[in-house]
Amino acid sequence: MILDIINKKRLGMKLTYKELDYFFNGYLSGDIADYQMSALLMAICINGMSDEEVYALTKIFIDSGDVLNFDDLPGIKVDKHSTGGIGDKTTLVIVPIVAACGGTIIKTSGRGLGYTGGTIDKLESIPGYRIDLSDSEIEKQVRDIGFVITGQTGDLVPMDKAIYALRDVTSTVSSIPLIASSIMSKKIAGGSDKILIDIKVGNGALIKNREEAKELSNLMKNIGKFYDREVRTIISDMNTPLGFAIGNALEVEEAMDVLKGKEVNNPFVDLCIELASDLVSMSLSISFDEAKEKVIEVIKNKSAYNKFLELVKRQGGDISKLKISDKTYKIKSDVDGTISKINALEFGKLSLRLGAGKEKVTDKIDYSVGIKLNKLIGDKVKKGEVLATLYYKKDIPEVKISNIYKFD
Amino acid sequence: MILDIINKKRLGMKLTYKELDYFFNGYLSGDIADYQMSALLMAICINGMSDEEVYALTKIFIDSGDVLNFDDLPGIKVDKHSTGGIGDKTTLVIVPIVAACGGTIIKTSGRGLGYTGGTIDKLESIPGYRIDLSDSEIEKQVRDIGFVITGQTGDLVPMDKAIYALRDVTSTVSSIPLIASSIMSKKIAGGSDKILIDIKVGNGALIKNREEAKELSNLMKNIGKFYDREVRTIISDMNTPLGFAIGNALEVEEAMDVLKGKEVNNPFVDLCIELASDLVSMSLSISFDEAKEKVIEVIKNKSAYNKFLELVKRQGGDISKLKISDKTYKIKSDVDGTISKINALEFGKLSLRLGAGKEKVTDKIDYSVGIKLNKLIGDKVKKGEVLATLYYKKDIPEVKISNIYKFD
Repeated sequence: MILDIINKKRLGMKLTYKELDYFFNGYLSGDIADYQMSALLMAICINGMSDEEVYALTKIFIDSGDVLNFDDLPGIKVDKHSTGGIGDKTTLVIVPIVAACGGTIIKTSGRGLGYTGGTIDKLESIPGYRIDLSDSEIEKQVRDIGFVITGQTGDLVPMDKAIYALRDVTSTVSSIPLIASSIMSKKIAGGSDKILIDIKVGNGALIKNREEAKELSNLMKNIGKFYDREVRTIISDMNTPLGFAIGNALEVEEAMDVLKGKEVNNPFVDLCIELASDLVSMSLSISFDEAKEKVIEVIKNKSAYNKFLELVKRQGGDISKLKISDKTYKIKSDVDGTISKINALEFGKLSLRLGAGKEKVTDKIDYSVGIKLNKLIGDKVKKGEVLATLYYKKDIPEVKISNIYKFD
Repeated sequence: MILDIINKKRLGMKLTYKELDYFFNGYLSGDIADYQMSALLMAICINGMSDEEVYALTKIFIDSGDVLNFDDLPGIKVDKHSTGGIGDKTTLVIVPIVAACGGTIIKTSGRGLGYTGGTIDKLESIPGYRIDLSDSEIEKQVRDIGFVITGQTGDLVPMDKAIYALRDVTSTVSSIPLIASSIMSKKIAGGSDKILIDIKVGNGALIKNREEAKELSNLMKNIGKFYDREVRTIISDMNTPLGFAIGNALEVEEAMDVLKGKEVNNPFVDLCIELASDLVSMSLSISFDEAKEKVIEVIKNKSAYNKFLELVKRQGGDISKLKISDKTYKIKSDVDGTISKINALEFGKLSLRLGAGKEKVTDKIDYSVGIKLNKLIGDKVKKGEVLATLYYKKDIPEVKISNIYKFD
């Protein structure tokens, strides 16, 4: 049976719900070995899965753990997920915006691993901020202030944790059907009514090109239909880091700048406004354009910024204690020219080397280190001008400018 | 590096010698985990390998263990390998024939696992027969009588053992490049000058169709060229069991019958003559037709049969003690008709259930049990006539005739 199932997928045939259930639950219970699961995962990566197989797998994932239910809470609960990128602090910006607009959003976030940071890590750079709210604390906070950003609650989709850990060490991560069922099972088990997915595309993301992003987008919308959940998607660029800051405290600081209206007209701000408008539109059941007006208004009148401060205080954080390293190193241009490319992946690696992220789960993060871009794509620079500033703690990592920047 | 290599093959790219060496030797040394190797093996199964990759892998396999050298022994040493089938006792017939014709053949054989029996198991049904000759015993016996059939000597291709065990439990067995490098590495490390491969095709074999068999044949000949070894191949049918007998002592008895000239004009005898003629042609460097004349002659004049008896005696066996179970059960036809199909795989499973083979390495074989066909394809039978006889020990397994036989 085990070998027959692997063999079917190897030959590109479809697996039934029963076969997938037998195999994946057999893996969780220990009857099916790591090396058998990784063989099946590789066959899925190469030969794909039909939509029906993905629906079945998503159901098996969801059924493996708790399923949250917030039906007792008022309002249409929306949730947002990003497939991950370098400098992606959008959650910190858009969740307070949605709340300021009157939307309801229960945001549970994860930790980062590898090049991409996690929202929870970023929030932990605020001394005191609690990321371990209980279910009743979450419910009370949502009733009181309409939103929450906390760590994962309950035992949601334990199967995804087990499978993801294996995918991570067997080059079977970047598979559209596996990504779709992994994300969607967690979002559906998370109990929100409507879901927005920000699909990152580019060299700093899991998804490397637009065709794959569109495929993933369609598949996730189809899963949403199957589960009677409205799913919207945005496909956004991840060839360049998002915004100016990479690193935990630095990103919190930048998120506050955006909420204060300090940053305008850069691609990161545009993306935040778009994502927030979609969420507000979904939560309040109004049009995107109406929602966008509200979003711009709550930034202007600082009510979104105040919501952020309210969130931090409510969850025990002291924003005045946010610490950014005072040891800095300036990367200066060695040429005159116009910046045509900033390599997100290379900046991701650099921030890892500075200590802003974890390579292994057991690594410790230094919240105060990171990178701040002084110039963005399209900017003209002269030889000797500062391109970016490194905030370091111990050593200054070696930087090869030509690996990161391209000039016209 | 590990993940990059898996990913390259996942995307269908070619791996270099260095990459394959790093990965496969890393697996043997324990630096690369089972689940990573099985992911790579599955990617190889689905995306294939170039000839250059197969040459590289074959070299890595060979280099993992001892390489035998029989250059000091007189004559051109030939070797023969069968990809395995139900009732395949050709080695027992053709090796004595080659020796009787004056050829030199050092035949090391393996044990069976699953449906297909191993030559060594068959010989062990002769009480006393030693399958563990030392290198010096082999050399002396080849000098004295020109041939030997013994178990694997030295530590040949330990990597193949490790990889095969993993392939067996991950549905990654039937891959042409992996089969070719596994077989050819063992044959080349075995030290023979010329190699004959009997590729079995059909439902009772690893290779299910002729296209794959031809692909495997070409690939093995190319590996032979690369290693400066003459390689001939024969593609032979394995939809029907080979000969009349399945089971260890029964097959030894049938092999003796063929050597005595008792069996004529059946597909098994034809195959033995063809294989033996190729081996004699290679060992004596004469044409196939000249070789065939010699082969027929040594069967007629019983010198091949006497060589078999000489072999058994020399290796300590007492052929008079060969035991076949006296408990028999006759499978009788439930219709009138002409036999159009005999399903080899079903007979393989039946012989396993009788105890003639091993499902797990730790199982014990009963040498005295098995099956003897009373009718072959093309034979007319009447209702109630005996189709086959089961030689059992404990229980008579259930037999569904329509699973095994088709009638016109």
